[in-house]
Amino acid sequence: MIEIHPVPGLPEIARGDDLAALLAGAIADAGLGPLPGDVLVVTHKAVSKSEGAVRVLEGDEEAAYRALVEEESAEILRRRGSLVIAKTRHGFICANAGVDRSNTAPGTAVLLPRDPDASAHGIRMALQAATGVDVPVIITDTFGRAWRRGLCDVAIGVSGLGPITDHRGATDDHGRVLQVTEVAVADEIAAAADLAMGKATGTPAALVRGLRLPPGSGRAADLVRDAPEDMFR
Amino acid sequence: MIEIHPVPGLPEIARGDDLAALLAGAIADAGLGPLPGDVLVVTHKAVSKSEGAVRVLEGDEEAAYRALVEEESAEILRRRGSLVIAKTRHGFICANAGVDRSNTAPGTAVLLPRDPDASAHGIRMALQAATGVDVPVIITDTFGRAWRRGLCDVAIGVSGLGPITDHRGATDDHGRVLQVTEVAVADEIAAAADLAMGKATGTPAALVRGLRLPPGSGRAADLVRDAPEDMFR
Repeated sequence: MIEIHPVPGLPEIARGDDLAALLAGAIADAGLGPLPGDVLVVTHKAVSKSEGAVRVLEGDEEAAYRALVEEESAEILRRRGSLVIAKTRHGFICANAGVDRSNTAPGTAVLLPRDPDASAHGIRMALQAATGVDVPVIITDTFGRAWRRGLCDVAIGVSGLGPITDHRGATDDHGRVLQVTEVAVADEIAAAADLAMGKATGTPAALVRGLRLPPGSGRAADLVRDAPEDMFR
Repeated sequence: MIEIHPVPGLPEIARGDDLAALLAGAIADAGLGPLPGDVLVVTHKAVSKSEGAVRVLEGDEEAAYRALVEEESAEILRRRGSLVIAKTRHGFICANAGVDRSNTAPGTAVLLPRDPDASAHGIRMALQAATGVDVPVIITDTFGRAWRRGLCDVAIGVSGLGPITDHRGATDDHGRVLQVTEVAVADEIAAAADLAMGKATGTPAALVRGLRLPPGSGRAADLVRDAPEDMFR
């Protein structure tokens, strides 16, 4: 069985907050451990706020927001009305280059963390120092998709796990080599954690327990399809 | 807390098997209920096999497989080498029109169910008749994505739940209208269930407990972005 525990009781995060210490405290206060084998999922918004990746939208708020989206875009793939689908500096393809005005103070916008893998690593190391348990960390954002309506949470930063489970060469019950070779396990964990967190309540973290992941390492860029390999840009 | 319970002990499914009865039996034998509020996730492969949506690949197996993929495609979006990205008759966009040769007898291929929503509805009704509990059902397949590497399970059939949670008009902790308005909750549940099922073990079902979904209804087509609205076809 897999369990997904929202981490309750976290305060509104602000610049300079020690997010890892707050997470360790909230996890302990909730009696959640952490336990070996857990994976900690944190929404990027909490990370970005603690790192100060928040901008004030001066003057005409809408215009300032649009300018910020352009600034955060390494490449614009499509525009439709006020919607921009862009590649971020990290290589992620998402709406508005990940610049978000929900769950942040009026007149401000939250950017993606500058280096989400490094943010995940920092939280993981601090959590290990505080609790003695090495818990892999996934930082998430909510992305749209081509072809399918609705948004899903995905991994934009990882530490301590392989974001793609590679079944190449593995066989099925019939002894046949599996066709499904690479599962985006970090994205599936991100999606699962979102079910427990909820958009409106603002719970920014969840512990996922019972995954039995193979030991691994990697970075969120492993989840990005390189442009030459991508048939849909 | 959300719990994801793989449903153990299901036999290899064959044409004509009463899948709902097998599921009800396996769920009861495992002491899993079902309980009100649970969602049952079933991989399409078990559904397709029980419905006889399996084809023998006669003669040159590779050529027969390629022909079957063309036959199952309503529209081919891209070709690269032997890979075909196609729209299925249901409107889903996926590799090889969903025709799959893993976890099926050698020399055969499994198609998508003809009407996965109807299949989900049938399982839900039969399970309700057998257990007295109305459990929403999601039928899944494993799809690739544009822009991101690795595959994720998604919903291709639903009954008894709204596949998209609509937060339009909802406000965040700052009283601000949420930017993230439509969450593909059925896809997130599909992804979460996959974490508990595993590709190689062939466990074809999981019960997801504790979701507290709002009452709803819908069909998997709600998750399909219409072509005119889709900027990436």
